[in-house]
Amino acid sequence: MSEARIWHGGDLDEARRLFPRAPEPWIDLSTGINPIAYPVPPLPASLFERLPSPADHRDLETAAAEAYGATDAAMVVAAPGTQVLISLLPHLRARSRVAVLGPTYAEHAHAWRKAGHEVVEAEAQGQLGGADVAIVVNPNNPDGRLIDREALLRLAEELRARGGWLVVDEAFADFDPRESLVPALPCNAIVLRSFGKTYGLAGIRIGFAVASRAIAASLRSTLGPWAVSGPAVAIGRKALRDRRWLDAARAARAADARRLDALLKPVAETPLCGTILYRLLPSRHAPDLFRHLGEHGIWVRRFQADPALLRFGLPGLPADWRRLENALALFRSR
Amino acid sequence: MSEARIWHGGDLDEARRLFPRAPEPWIDLSTGINPIAYPVPPLPASLFERLPSPADHRDLETAAAEAYGATDAAMVVAAPGTQVLISLLPHLRARSRVAVLGPTYAEHAHAWRKAGHEVVEAEAQGQLGGADVAIVVNPNNPDGRLIDREALLRLAEELRARGGWLVVDEAFADFDPRESLVPALPCNAIVLRSFGKTYGLAGIRIGFAVASRAIAASLRSTLGPWAVSGPAVAIGRKALRDRRWLDAARAARAADARRLDALLKPVAETPLCGTILYRLLPSRHAPDLFRHLGEHGIWVRRFQADPALLRFGLPGLPADWRRLENALALFRSR
Repeated sequence: MSEARIWHGGDLDEARRLFPRAPEPWIDLSTGINPIAYPVPPLPASLFERLPSPADHRDLETAAAEAYGATDAAMVVAAPGTQVLISLLPHLRARSRVAVLGPTYAEHAHAWRKAGHEVVEAEAQGQLGGADVAIVVNPNNPDGRLIDREALLRLAEELRARGGWLVVDEAFADFDPRESLVPALPCNAIVLRSFGKTYGLAGIRIGFAVASRAIAASLRSTLGPWAVSGPAVAIGRKALRDRRWLDAARAARAADARRLDALLKPVAETPLCGTILYRLLPSRHAPDLFRHLGEHGIWVRRFQADPALLRFGLPGLPADWRRLENALALFRSR
Repeated sequence: MSEARIWHGGDLDEARRLFPRAPEPWIDLSTGINPIAYPVPPLPASLFERLPSPADHRDLETAAAEAYGATDAAMVVAAPGTQVLISLLPHLRARSRVAVLGPTYAEHAHAWRKAGHEVVEAEAQGQLGGADVAIVVNPNNPDGRLIDREALLRLAEELRARGGWLVVDEAFADFDPRESLVPALPCNAIVLRSFGKTYGLAGIRIGFAVASRAIAASLRSTLGPWAVSGPAVAIGRKALRDRRWLDAARAARAADARRLDALLKPVAETPLCGTILYRLLPSRHAPDLFRHLGEHGIWVRRFQADPALLRFGLPGLPADWRRLENALALFRSR
């Protein structure tokens, strides 16, 4: 995990810099964001003009507690995106030994290291128990590796003995919550849940931490009141209670993921993995394919640590699917 | 400054609890938010759906640097509201002796105390120099006290000698920036600027810190990327560059403030003070007036520390002005 600039998905400015002659509009497959967004309801002007009321903010946390299966809304902290929580957490502990189960989303290691902690990337679950803070992304980004809840509970117990924390980033668990730690949350575990990815609304900035009342209170006071915008509070409350939309979206995106796998299979060397919001392609042709797709205005996610991997988000519009199909067909016929 | 729950403006739930029989709609004069909001431009769906691009986020900071007179956009950090910055700052320093020039906005002392620092409320400017961190709200909330820039520069110099910080909360400086520290910022000063109050858009959550590149970088990394929502980035970039709107708003709100003073003068014991977004009324009848207005559905700001003070924000609609006028006339004729 490099200390240099971290590559992120979603930055089309970077795409345009690298491929200045690519056709517009770009198709952005570099994120794991649902391309079919939750329909934004009409937003009255008062949501923009007034501070979000404390009652509405609490209700957003209640809606999240219901959606994630938390036993108590006081354990849920709403924030302007999970990223702020990732960046804040390291400031709530004295200097610690931190183990991140890698390879994974680079911001965790980055945030702890920047705040002065000692960070190692663990290659196996077994290496996590000896740390003060263990960090797991579950399901993992980018490969979809899923650790079962029992193993996480044992790990939390091991860490708890010496005041350690288990941080579980469940950014991609909404569509596959079977191993979520939220319903059985140990007092020393902190679960992060993303809103924007599932609901296709990454721009409004909502994310949640679920933790013991003590840790939740500490996060809450570090963020202060009103950290989440009025429009985001209103949209989040509605969307998190719309179970019908979530079920339909899960089915539709799962079908999309199968369709994407079928398209990518001819270029893959081993089976694709990931979650239903992104698929990871292992291929020694990855650097060539990245360039080829870039030249065709299709932006996918590459990895500093492993050039033989590309991650594909799901296309949204039928025209985007066609452009991807055509570009892949061209690549194979070179 | 009490450690108990801090009273804030803007919480109409609290108003409804205290005065359950008051007529709706409530007129909220409990905040210092411009009642005539900056017109929100059309917001394309992509602002809600995609992560705000790093270039757009940087441009928001550039627009703020231009608006506030900062010499370098790298010194400006955009956040989802100033409150988050107030809550975060105490986490960037080892345990310090903190002096807040009071009486003032209670969240500063609260945030530093909660993070484990030793906090005193200073009664005079002269008591600030001996602290590790001195905090001044300028112009002050609620009384509008304005400290001149030269005095602040001397104070910063005094603090700098032993690694101290000067935090200047300029939440209400947009309409009166003559003593702003931003254009002459010492390397150990951190200035906070609010967006929502001036532009009447408190719900979208934008605030800024202006500080040395080193402190700015530290704040930036604690917030992480994407802390400000896509719609907020778009609105902020446009509004901060609209100098014509700002000038017109300043003139209109100054006229409103004079009109409000004329209404309140008959109840005031000494001249009113404040800024053009709120007026502070000193009156031994304050508790009665608070109750009287509450029963008429008008919510103003009272103070735990001094029951003989009420703060009035500006009414917006002509009908709101009339209801306030009528309620005040009734109060005087009791």
